[in-house]
Amino acid sequence: MSEKGLLVVFSGPSGAGKDTVLKRLMEKEPGIRLSVSATTRAPREGETDGKDYHFLTRAHFDELVANDKMLEHAEYCGNCYGTPSEPIEKWQAEGCDVILEIEVQGGAQIKAKRPDCVSIFVLPPSLEVLENRLRRRGTESEEAIQKRLGAAKAEIAKAVLYDYIIVNDDLETAVDEMAGLLRAEKRRASRNQEFIERML
Amino acid sequence: MSEKGLLVVFSGPSGAGKDTVLKRLMEKEPGIRLSVSATTRAPREGETDGKDYHFLTRAHFDELVANDKMLEHAEYCGNCYGTPSEPIEKWQAEGCDVILEIEVQGGAQIKAKRPDCVSIFVLPPSLEVLENRLRRRGTESEEAIQKRLGAAKAEIAKAVLYDYIIVNDDLETAVDEMAGLLRAEKRRASRNQEFIERML
Repeated sequence: MSEKGLLVVFSGPSGAGKDTVLKRLMEKEPGIRLSVSATTRAPREGETDGKDYHFLTRAHFDELVANDKMLEHAEYCGNCYGTPSEPIEKWQAEGCDVILEIEVQGGAQIKAKRPDCVSIFVLPPSLEVLENRLRRRGTESEEAIQKRLGAAKAEIAKAVLYDYIIVNDDLETAVDEMAGLLRAEKRRASRNQEFIERML
Repeated sequence: MSEKGLLVVFSGPSGAGKDTVLKRLMEKEPGIRLSVSATTRAPREGETDGKDYHFLTRAHFDELVANDKMLEHAEYCGNCYGTPSEPIEKWQAEGCDVILEIEVQGGAQIKAKRPDCVSIFVLPPSLEVLENRLRRRGTESEEAIQKRLGAAKAEIAKAVLYDYIIVNDDLETAVDEMAGLLRAEKRRASRNQEFIERML
């Protein structure tokens, strides 16, 4: 069977619990790595280079883009953000699955560039639950909450473009489902053509 | 999430252990049904109508074909064989996954007619193991074994056309993998469009 790790695009609206799912998944499945984004913005206090972000100069960032070594990139408030491909490919070659937490638009860029990637969208059990979760954080104004909810609906409408959806109702169930999806994807015939040829 | 059962095309060469995998899978997963073929040949001693085959008159068989109620069909030694669609659709509507054990050509016909089906190809661990398994049956001449091996190679070459492959080395592992594939397929976004729309 194929020994190469998967590239996984992982998206979902704010409040669906993406970070919690990933944290628990990585505790349970040691062969998983999280892709680290690159940025040209300055590190904030407490941020570590290579962990929170790869902090790059603008020249270095532009060079990676020019050499097709960014899977996707965008400019936001005068700073560049992107996904360097080299660390991902290295991990995949080592047999690790690499998860890329990214919003829907970036996810579509990756899918176009790497059609072999697996895309997973995490949903809340319902919009009511999502609203409650956002409210319970207690850090945001009513206006901000309504804005987030509107953005969440627009994102959820794009979930059909993903390969898989999982519903984060019970955390352990969601995490086990996600691990199961990754195992199943490794059994895809399209990922095992070499294995079949070797057998013959 | 989608409540509809899956239609599963299940193929593999003679000696790969298809029947053993299905028998054990059905013991572990009560929601699975096996599709029963229809035939115009006469029942043999000990065969039960509706269990071994649906035994049909030629007129009845032709009527099902004419009304597009056969997912695939073929004539062999003057007898017709086919897969009636109605029992499959009924089971799927009840939430059962329906498995159709079929050779590669029939599998391709089904995939063309029902692109939503999941196709799984079961492989032996190696051609050597396959040969040993065929030999251990002890019921066939050397010539028959070589013929079966040749046919197996031709079939295995078609495994790339399937959605998934599983390797039947350890039976329990193979069965668990197959159950996992079916669970994962139910999380496909394409099978859950209604669920996403309802949420919005």
